[in-house]
Amino acid sequence: MTDTLETTETHRLIASDKVEGTAVYNPEGDRLGTIANVMIDKISGKSEYAVMEFGGLFGLGSDHYPLPWDMLTYDTDKGGYVVNLTKEQLTEAPRYAREESPEYTDDYGRTIYGYYGLSYPMF
Amino acid sequence: MTDTLETTETHRLIASDKVEGTAVYNPEGDRLGTIANVMIDKISGKSEYAVMEFGGLFGLGSDHYPLPWDMLTYDTDKGGYVVNLTKEQLTEAPRYAREESPEYTDDYGRTIYGYYGLSYPMF
Repeated sequence: MTDTLETTETHRLIASDKVEGTAVYNPEGDRLGTIANVMIDKISGKSEYAVMEFGGLFGLGSDHYPLPWDMLTYDTDKGGYVVNLTKEQLTEAPRYAREESPEYTDDYGRTIYGYYGLSYPMF
Repeated sequence: MTDTLETTETHRLIASDKVEGTAVYNPEGDRLGTIANVMIDKISGKSEYAVMEFGGLFGLGSDHYPLPWDMLTYDTDKGGYVVNLTKEQLTEAPRYAREESPEYTDDYGRTIYGYYGLSYPMF
C-alpha cells in the first residue's frame, strides 16, 4: 500500500478497524467496494491481503475479494483506496462468499497473485 | 506473534476483524483485556502493535494499550492471546483513552518498546 506525499512519518501507521469499511475505487473513480478486513501473517505480522467486499444487497450475498496489500493506494481526495482494476476484471477475480473463510494456502495465494499479474512473493 | 505447533501452514494468516475482540491473558491466566485493533504500517503492511483495551465499564472510560506485535502468542486452549505481563505492569504502561488516537511517532514507539524492555526495531 502506498501513501500520499503529504502524509508525514508520524502517520506511518493506520488502525485495522479504520481500514475496515473504507471504500475502494478504481482510477476512473468507480466505487468497487469496501475493505472487509486485512489478512495478517500471525508470526511476522505482515498484512498480505486487504479483502474487498463487493456485491449483494445490505451485505447479503456479497463476495470477498482478496487483494494483495501492495495493490492498494490511499487517496486522500477520494477518502478511500484506489486499486488499478476494472469492474470487468472483478467478474473473474478470485473471491469467496462473505460467510466463508477459505484457507489461504500458497496455492490460493499463487492463484490470487497470478490473476492480478503479480509474482507470488516468498513469505 | 508466535503460534502453536498444531497450527498448520494453511492457517498462517488471520483476519484483522478476528484479532479484534480477542481476549488477552497473562501466563497466570488472568484476563487482561481484549484486542481493540492492530496498528499497521501503511506502506510495508507490517503489524507493529496489537492495541489492548482494558478497564472501564461497558467500554466507557477504558484505555488502549499498544503492545508490540511480537509480545503476543495465541493460546488455542485459552482461546486468546497470552502476553507476559502482570496486572501491576499495566498500571504504569503506555496508554491512551479509547477516544484518542495518538500519533505513533518514533518517540512514542521507543517509549512503548522501552517500557516493555524491548529494543525499538528499525522499521
